[in-house]
Amino acid sequence: MGMVKLYDTTLRDGTQSEDISFLLEDKIRIAHRLDESGIHYIEGGWPGSNPKDVAFFKEIKKEKLSQAKIAAFGSTRRAKVTPDKDNNIITLIKAEPDVITIFGKTWDFHVREALRISLEENLELINDSLIHLKKNAPEVFYDAEHFFDGYKANPEYAIKTLQAAEDAKVDCIVLCDTNGGTMPFEVAEIIKAVKKQIKTPLGIHTHNDGECAVANSLVAVNEGIVQIQGTINGFGERCGNANLCSIIPALKLKMKRDCINEEQLRKMRDLSRFVYELANFSPPKHQAYVGNAAFAHKGGVHVSAIQRHPETYEHIRPELVGNCTRVLISDLSGRSNILAKAEEFNINLDSKDPVTLEILDNIKEMEHRGFQFEGAEASFELLMKRALGTHKKFFSIIGFRVIDEKRHEDQKVISEATVMVKVGGKIEHTAAEGNGPVNALDNALRKALEKFYPRLKEMRLLDYKVRVLPGGQGTASVIRVLIESGDKESRWGTVGVSDNIIDASYQALIDGIEYKLDKVEE
Amino acid sequence: MGMVKLYDTTLRDGTQSEDISFLLEDKIRIAHRLDESGIHYIEGGWPGSNPKDVAFFKEIKKEKLSQAKIAAFGSTRRAKVTPDKDNNIITLIKAEPDVITIFGKTWDFHVREALRISLEENLELINDSLIHLKKNAPEVFYDAEHFFDGYKANPEYAIKTLQAAEDAKVDCIVLCDTNGGTMPFEVAEIIKAVKKQIKTPLGIHTHNDGECAVANSLVAVNEGIVQIQGTINGFGERCGNANLCSIIPALKLKMKRDCINEEQLRKMRDLSRFVYELANFSPPKHQAYVGNAAFAHKGGVHVSAIQRHPETYEHIRPELVGNCTRVLISDLSGRSNILAKAEEFNINLDSKDPVTLEILDNIKEMEHRGFQFEGAEASFELLMKRALGTHKKFFSIIGFRVIDEKRHEDQKVISEATVMVKVGGKIEHTAAEGNGPVNALDNALRKALEKFYPRLKEMRLLDYKVRVLPGGQGTASVIRVLIESGDKESRWGTVGVSDNIIDASYQALIDGIEYKLDKVEE
Repeated sequence: MGMVKLYDTTLRDGTQSEDISFLLEDKIRIAHRLDESGIHYIEGGWPGSNPKDVAFFKEIKKEKLSQAKIAAFGSTRRAKVTPDKDNNIITLIKAEPDVITIFGKTWDFHVREALRISLEENLELINDSLIHLKKNAPEVFYDAEHFFDGYKANPEYAIKTLQAAEDAKVDCIVLCDTNGGTMPFEVAEIIKAVKKQIKTPLGIHTHNDGECAVANSLVAVNEGIVQIQGTINGFGERCGNANLCSIIPALKLKMKRDCINEEQLRKMRDLSRFVYELANFSPPKHQAYVGNAAFAHKGGVHVSAIQRHPETYEHIRPELVGNCTRVLISDLSGRSNILAKAEEFNINLDSKDPVTLEILDNIKEMEHRGFQFEGAEASFELLMKRALGTHKKFFSIIGFRVIDEKRHEDQKVISEATVMVKVGGKIEHTAAEGNGPVNALDNALRKALEKFYPRLKEMRLLDYKVRVLPGGQGTASVIRVLIESGDKESRWGTVGVSDNIIDASYQALIDGIEYKLDKVEE
Repeated sequence: MGMVKLYDTTLRDGTQSEDISFLLEDKIRIAHRLDESGIHYIEGGWPGSNPKDVAFFKEIKKEKLSQAKIAAFGSTRRAKVTPDKDNNIITLIKAEPDVITIFGKTWDFHVREALRISLEENLELINDSLIHLKKNAPEVFYDAEHFFDGYKANPEYAIKTLQAAEDAKVDCIVLCDTNGGTMPFEVAEIIKAVKKQIKTPLGIHTHNDGECAVANSLVAVNEGIVQIQGTINGFGERCGNANLCSIIPALKLKMKRDCINEEQLRKMRDLSRFVYELANFSPPKHQAYVGNAAFAHKGGVHVSAIQRHPETYEHIRPELVGNCTRVLISDLSGRSNILAKAEEFNINLDSKDPVTLEILDNIKEMEHRGFQFEGAEASFELLMKRALGTHKKFFSIIGFRVIDEKRHEDQKVISEATVMVKVGGKIEHTAAEGNGPVNALDNALRKALEKFYPRLKEMRLLDYKVRVLPGGQGTASVIRVLIESGDKESRWGTVGVSDNIIDASYQALIDGIEYKLDKVEE
């Protein structure tokens, strides 16, 4: 089974999503990461359309990549111009990428209505643009835009457009499901028909408008295509592009196709999260292969079975993609879930102990109020310790006050927090400012407690998430705050819930601090 | 082409997702909605496993459904017990549903390791459980658990388990891809093989671990299955179940299969959002068919083409599923996007006017700072009016102060806001409490301004969303607040961005109030 090449368009098609945009530095970092991950082609942008993209191609030349090739994207020449005089084509060649990929019209309807030229002219336009590019770039790919819809509308003409590309001796002809609506069995049928008439290696570029982009790509590989175009995490406009993070593991582990190596595959989850981070996106929990919940089992029954035979409920071993089996804490949890979780924290719970039942009830009640312990396992651990009576009370917070003030119309809001804490018999009363009330409160709490516990200085607030759980009217809802804290060795999550955002943040901050002090004790 | 029956398991398999749980009242409401939407079977729960589910079957009997049938889920009998004495089976029959669906083991591995019985005993267990149920319920379905994996491991045995069900004369045999890892071409092949040996109508139940659940379901229909099991919005554990909201439109519009009627299909988006609301979930923007971005086009080029010929870039007409084409505002926006948006607000922008360019620059700069106008179109409109000089300044906020105080360890946090506003030459200085600082500030602002503009009383805060955009350390990040306000006639969204959550909320609140006052003026 031959190798399948991976062509990433996160930096071009991915950025057409309304909520994704990358700074130049981010694009360079992502390109390096893609290169390390074994991605063969990195489409860096559309220099003829986005002036900012010209800078990418200039910068990436200064970088050292281990194996990936850089591709620039553009379109066939305009109608009344020769390729050597077409601005878009000139810009593409000037960018000096390793690969130039241009798209052209396949659907007779588009040729007539959008380009307003004859069907014959369109074939010339495809052919001579590609011939010109082949003389001026090491590798040239042709993206047959709207291929499947065009084929369904007028199969003979659609094939002619591919032949126009084949005659120009392009290196790969990529069949694009631009509208994203083609169904898997249609993709199979159409590719079979194309392969009877076209000998050039084929690629596939799908969109997720029918929630079939990944499936369509895999079906296409099964029919003999050798290049898959997609994006990390399926970024892209409308419903997204084909998600390479879902395609690559299936390609390698299930279809046994050579694409990236095992070590690179093990870093798939890291790659996914890295790109989310740069895109300022929360990774969706339920994402295939790499999501937090992808191998997370709920419901007491499953968990015991999984612990004995993981292949019972897991379609692949999660470690192969850098993920792991998780036991979820929830109100469907049977005793086995709680016990398994406690074991992870080295807490010995007797399954017949009424305290275990009490913890279970506590969890259900807190969840009804809005608590979520996934991502806040430090709060869960503290909950168990408090129930078992093994938690040491390191301090009392006697009270606090947070003031946010805007003195004049043009003045920024200033936030200041005052706290009073008690440790042993001693009281510490201090104040701090911050960017916002929660930051001020966090600064003041730590300032006060560091006097007694200097090791709190090692602790940093790493992430702060707020979720408003609708309870009726806007700001009178229940607010859940998830905080991630960390020191040099580890990171831990804590949670707080209240209808008051300061109170919710306070709960999560206190748990974070108590967890650190527990760690220091041990 | 025959009818395909839709079997919804949102209330059972859907709730195995860690973040989904429904109260009894919610389940009844969802059942009604599913019934109105034309869903043929509603799986209400697993009474033998979850005592709370027993209540559902009791309650739903009191309700009047127009066509849907209620199904109860459970398992084959335990090994050493006859069906009439098996608790799970007794509970199923007692629930008196229209349909009983039980699952049984297909994979020889599971029979030996999980059930610890012989392969022959398992066949008896499947057969006599179903025979017993057929005598005691109007319709009985058999879910062949792990069917595709079981077939790959031992095809002869897997078929035997189906034959055991067929011999019991079940009404439908559902092939389940329980681990969610089967690929679309495998599904097609295996179903072809099954159909040669099994004459009973077949169903399909897929999971999304490979991001192929929808595709696998459609492929299965193409191979002749007549029942699809899935959930609304693809809810379910791990990566979710097959998403009925993506399957139904494809079934009806592309595969031309009878399932629900056109009017019900037009309500697909409403159904999706209704279930998200009850589940306390933010609808994902990029969801196929029904997501806000599903027909949202970015990039100046596409937009002009779409306005002329929508079928150019849309795989279906969005109105058919209750959605619509949207023009996005973003920093890739060409003039045509801004002009189209302005038109929606009845603002006449001259495309050659330097003010249009200024608005464009403003938008890009604000987006870089974290603003997002999608969902905050009232802020966008105010931005344009302020740039055009057509916005009336209704009030000045001279200053405000918000105090959040926790006086004792056990006392709740109390929030109080003081504001000073100026209208004409007159100053109003007042205070208000609230659940949290933002609610207090909102109450105080409106209390002060209602003295001058009594119609502000008609306005309510409907939704409040906070997003922390990572900028480095936790609480020192940029915070974006999206607020939705409304009165009896309409709803409008506003946005605020700052590193201070109070400031960000304040900006969004002020825009919301100004927008209302603009409306009152007109």
